[in-house]
Amino acid sequence: MAGLKPLKGMRDFLPPQQIRREVLFEKIKSVFRRHGFDPIETPAIESWDVLSGKYGAEEKLIYRFRDRGDREVGLRYDLTVPLARFFAANQGNLPRPFKRYQIQPVWRAEKPQKGRYREFYQCDIDTIGSKNSLSDAQIIAAIRDALVELGLSDFTIRVNHRQFLRAIAHRFGLEGDMEVEMARILDKLDKVGLDGIRKLYLEKGFDEGVVNTILGLIEESPSIERVFEFVGDAGREAFDNLGDVFRYLDMLGVREAVFDISLARGLDYYTGMVFEIVLNNLKIGSVAGGGRYDGLIEVFTKYPVPAVGGSIGIDRLMTAMEELGLLKEIPSTYTQVLIAYRNASPEMMEYVFRVRNMLDFLNVDVYSGDADLRGQLSYASSKGVRWVVIVGEDEVQKGTVGVRDMESREQVEVPLNELADYFRMRNS
Amino acid sequence: MAGLKPLKGMRDFLPPQQIRREVLFEKIKSVFRRHGFDPIETPAIESWDVLSGKYGAEEKLIYRFRDRGDREVGLRYDLTVPLARFFAANQGNLPRPFKRYQIQPVWRAEKPQKGRYREFYQCDIDTIGSKNSLSDAQIIAAIRDALVELGLSDFTIRVNHRQFLRAIAHRFGLEGDMEVEMARILDKLDKVGLDGIRKLYLEKGFDEGVVNTILGLIEESPSIERVFEFVGDAGREAFDNLGDVFRYLDMLGVREAVFDISLARGLDYYTGMVFEIVLNNLKIGSVAGGGRYDGLIEVFTKYPVPAVGGSIGIDRLMTAMEELGLLKEIPSTYTQVLIAYRNASPEMMEYVFRVRNMLDFLNVDVYSGDADLRGQLSYASSKGVRWVVIVGEDEVQKGTVGVRDMESREQVEVPLNELADYFRMRNS
Repeated sequence: MAGLKPLKGMRDFLPPQQIRREVLFEKIKSVFRRHGFDPIETPAIESWDVLSGKYGAEEKLIYRFRDRGDREVGLRYDLTVPLARFFAANQGNLPRPFKRYQIQPVWRAEKPQKGRYREFYQCDIDTIGSKNSLSDAQIIAAIRDALVELGLSDFTIRVNHRQFLRAIAHRFGLEGDMEVEMARILDKLDKVGLDGIRKLYLEKGFDEGVVNTILGLIEESPSIERVFEFVGDAGREAFDNLGDVFRYLDMLGVREAVFDISLARGLDYYTGMVFEIVLNNLKIGSVAGGGRYDGLIEVFTKYPVPAVGGSIGIDRLMTAMEELGLLKEIPSTYTQVLIAYRNASPEMMEYVFRVRNMLDFLNVDVYSGDADLRGQLSYASSKGVRWVVIVGEDEVQKGTVGVRDMESREQVEVPLNELADYFRMRNS
Repeated sequence: MAGLKPLKGMRDFLPPQQIRREVLFEKIKSVFRRHGFDPIETPAIESWDVLSGKYGAEEKLIYRFRDRGDREVGLRYDLTVPLARFFAANQGNLPRPFKRYQIQPVWRAEKPQKGRYREFYQCDIDTIGSKNSLSDAQIIAAIRDALVELGLSDFTIRVNHRQFLRAIAHRFGLEGDMEVEMARILDKLDKVGLDGIRKLYLEKGFDEGVVNTILGLIEESPSIERVFEFVGDAGREAFDNLGDVFRYLDMLGVREAVFDISLARGLDYYTGMVFEIVLNNLKIGSVAGGGRYDGLIEVFTKYPVPAVGGSIGIDRLMTAMEELGLLKEIPSTYTQVLIAYRNASPEMMEYVFRVRNMLDFLNVDVYSGDADLRGQLSYASSKGVRWVVIVGEDEVQKGTVGVRDMESREQVEVPLNELADYFRMRNS
């Protein structure tokens, strides 16, 4: 018999953790709905044909196996490729543009390490079927508003456009691998600084003059206009798109967005605007990101379909919220009141249920084990229940209950006819 | 390239379906919380050692494979065995009794047929660590209240006790396979009737005198007292337990429960009370069921731990609710208002976002594609949006908007300063 713990890189979520996750997901969903996104779900298992060839070198991390019908299948690696398959399969029944959110687990056979898991939830929104810059802005605004709804305020939204990076590369004759390498190294600016980047470029055999010119531009923290001036007409689409995106973001009340030419984003399939949200003053990396990927859906539809999307990194976000003290208000149980009793005689239990039915506007746990009153109080505290209503022979006779606040450890006697009001006052 | 459809027996959920599921799950969860249950989640993939030997002949339906580290693993087949593993692994950090709900998908490589899928959600509540009859009653009451919350009213909760069935079998010297067979055939009473059952018993080689006596008892629709009289002291625990369960159900306001000696329930691991909820006048089978299983957790803890639980069959429940017209009120989109516009000039879009920000208490989709107004209206209707707010040059100049009710197809002009109230009235 193997250990009782979950497999490496997988997790059990106990009630205190799961409640936090439920609260987070509910808030995020409510914001996505507010921006006009609707939910979908797709199966965990996809045909291998659907998954293969979409993730580059990461393909080897897919959980791949043969099912009982000897079909080659795999567990979904992200929610984007399944979305593309979904869109192609169901396009006749979907509005266009199609705006969806999706919150489901994905599986990656990665080497587990701090904050990296083999099963984790992705929380995605995407708009399929629109090239309009407003759809780019809506993705950023919806994710930004979700973070604000969760209580975050001190963050920066870095925005760039892949065409700018391509245009810079092409200006210096960098194509193919070298073009990819240029962007990949630039993306490390945050981590290694200008000197670190210079070193990486030179190591990879970039011409020193080219490197100097590129780093000179980066050092300026150039505006959109400045980059457009630098690359010329090859950056026209990026220039127009980003201008619209920032204008719409302003109308949508998003004040945290800044243009940042050093942002590249890892994924190969991005073609246009890319963004990333980083929490200021927290060394935790980005908590959300995304961009436009106008080439991916076509793999399934066989005709071009533009798309833009973004994703919130739930695990990292929870770590950040924990550090910022934003999870303190979330209780470790949904139960608001435990009803405890001195013995389980039929008369006592009649009274217990009378009390319970008076409190039907609350989450009430009637103790269902066999411990004595002391054990019932320790049940309440191990579960994290704030209030315990205590019933004994005296209380039954007097028509009262004891109400114990497990936080202050104070206990008062409350007549039955005042009990509902007692909690209504404390619950509002 | 394989087809674009999901694999056989798996499903894509489009927004109208997924919204129904979300609404259902939220209501069910709120009722479970009200009864003192808290949520957990466990990983989709479990070690093969955890899954094997728990499901009898059904074990061959588990999706089983070797992971990248060459470990034998499988996708979870239900939520009960993972719960048992979870409890054993985390018992030091759990209150006892431990009351949890869990709503997650499971996978079974079954032959797909109408209403049977290879991936489907289970929706379970269980109480671990209590032999108290109140914990049996709470499971039944929580599931019953969830059905009531969903609008169901005409149903019957059939309740029985495995000890009664065991005692009847033993009275006639039926042991082992014959004991199991007796209960298994009895369970078919609903489907094949008394004569059908007689035939099945005789086919299996049961003694005709024994069969007549058993069927005589069944034909009476005997009360708990009558069965106790029939089996004698071997049914003492069942008699006491069921008496308490029905008394508690009464206090919990559950009026739909009836004792039914013919109920057996399929799963091998039940040891005590078993129950099943069937919708009256619908030929759809049971929508929920469960029972006490005091032997399963021990497999992982290595010491006895009593447990009782139940499960709602979401897919069947949705089919029933559909037939009963209980899903009609659930909209096919969360979006309440679409804002449509004649053109996307900067001035127009400024106005569009002024309108949007006035309606921030609603789920508002600002059209983000490139269609003309006519196309935008057809987007609204394909998405299922009830209200379209229309903005054109005239409206901008006059400080009004057009509001079109997509149901009645009526359109009115509303001044901007009355717009929020217009929707507040229609939304309450």
